[in-house]
Amino acid sequence: MIESRIRVRYSETDGMGIAYHANHLVWFEVGRSDYCRIAGVPYPEMERAGYFLVVTEVSCRYLKPAVYDQELIVKTRLREINRRSVRFEYELVAASEEELMATGHTRHLVLNRDGRPTALPAAWLDALQRVDPRV
Amino acid sequence: MIESRIRVRYSETDGMGIAYHANHLVWFEVGRSDYCRIAGVPYPEMERAGYFLVVTEVSCRYLKPAVYDQELIVKTRLREINRRSVRFEYELVAASEEELMATGHTRHLVLNRDGRPTALPAAWLDALQRVDPRV
Amino acid sequence: MIESRIRVRYSETDGMGIAYHANHLVWFEVGRSDYCRIAGVPYPEMERAGYFLVVTEVSCRYLKPAVYDQELIVKTRLREINRRSVRFEYELVAASEEELMATGHTRHLVLNRDGRPTALPAAWLDALQRVDPRV
Amino acid sequence: MIESRIRVRYSETDGMGIAYHANHLVWFEVGRSDYCRIAGVPYPEMERAGYFLVVTEVSCRYLKPAVYDQELIVKTRLREINRRSVRFEYELVAASEEELMATGHTRHLVLNRDGRPTALPAAWLDALQRVDPRV
Repeated sequence: MIESRIRVRYSETDGMGIAYHANHLVWFEVGRSDYCRIAGVPYPEMERAGYFLVVTEVSCRYLKPAVYDQELIVKTRLREINRRSVRFEYELVAASEEELMATGHTRHLVLNRDGRPTALPAAWLDALQRVDPRV
Repeated sequence: MIESRIRVRYSETDGMGIAYHANHLVWFEVGRSDYCRIAGVPYPEMERAGYFLVVTEVSCRYLKPAVYDQELIVKTRLREINRRSVRFEYELVAASEEELMATGHTRHLVLNRDGRPTALPAAWLDALQRVDPRV
Repeated sequence: MIESRIRVRYSETDGMGIAYHANHLVWFEVGRSDYCRIAGVPYPEMERAGYFLVVTEVSCRYLKPAVYDQELIVKTRLREINRRSVRFEYELVAASEEELMATGHTRHLVLNRDGRPTALPAAWLDALQRVDPRV
Repeated sequence: MIESRIRVRYSETDGMGIAYHANHLVWFEVGRSDYCRIAGVPYPEMERAGYFLVVTEVSCRYLKPAVYDQELIVKTRLREINRRSVRFEYELVAASEEELMATGHTRHLVLNRDGRPTALPAAWLDALQRVDPRV
């Protein structure tokens, strides 16, 4: 499991004075991006090599509103992976008291430059799995 | 069911040349907002009266990527409603050939100004239901 | 001058209860995009042909805050154009009473696929100018 | 001068494969927010006390495109301040080689809860100025 620290931006708040709910997907992306970098497979490198992890499914449950300037931790884990698809799961917690704010998941298909399904190189699959031994 | 027409903005595209997946939640919000306005209960009016439909749950499945300048239709329906919570469902279709691009849902709790659960006025509940007789 | 109608989204509001100031640049982009389409040179077509209008400069002055659900009109005009660069100017007005909300400009360089300066085809230059005879 | 470190998110890229130009205003906001916190006047505290720094003017010049996953430093300085208005200036540099990517400014009016001009407490004015002795 990888932890990413973010701070709620004013641009991310809405008229209710809390973080707008679509931003949670962006924060999940920050977590996923850190996960791949730490696994030794930075996502920009994947794209340069012609592999694109397109999002096919997302969900999020909102337990507590996040507010401007609040520090949050995104905990990202890889739940399922094979050479053609990946599922990440996320927990968003308040940095101050480790309170759970939201949970969610994303599922991704591996596509090539032409937008057709392809298979991740085996070495990358291994690297992504090795970060989290529970996978 | 309410139909809202949107056009993909350049700001909504990402490095893959398609609409970034978090924007679908924003487009769903456009649909939901139109739904309430057409039902005779514009959301700004709800907020002025002290009722806030906070998002507690979202999901989205992505079937086809949307691209810059593409015209899309958001089809919004109310699936469940009681005085304390609401569930909307959405279909996103390409305006040109009515192709299904994405489906999703949002669930909302009714909160008052203090962030505590409250009950929608019965007249509003009726108005929201009357838009879609299948509810 | 081209007029584009937009409605402020909830996602575009911030904790002050008004539209966050970066969205004005997005609305200007909607105006610019409509301008090019109406001129007969849709921006997606420009990109497919290998011409990219990269933003090199923006400014915006905010006179009145825009609020959620408010209908706004973006008035876009082309102020300067040559084959290598373009300057658009924008006025944002409230649709209800034609009150001026904001003014701004963007300047763009014409780049090719390799990110190097290039020259717009003369026919497109003419088409873009013909929309606004005052240029 | 305050330095804030950010990393370009995938959500911030656009179809040209570079960071969309409106995000620079968001990054400036991150810098401004850090500036106020470091000065001992966190912006959330200002708002709780009834002072709102509404944006009245922005500009940005784009010198080099920022790309996904790139680390950037926002350098924020306070250029002018009096009890009723503030001007911040920003430089965006690539973290790797200190290359200048963009420059910009924002101007702010101090408003109260009713949206009317007011004056910042003198102690806060002092605190904000003391961060940067060159003001």
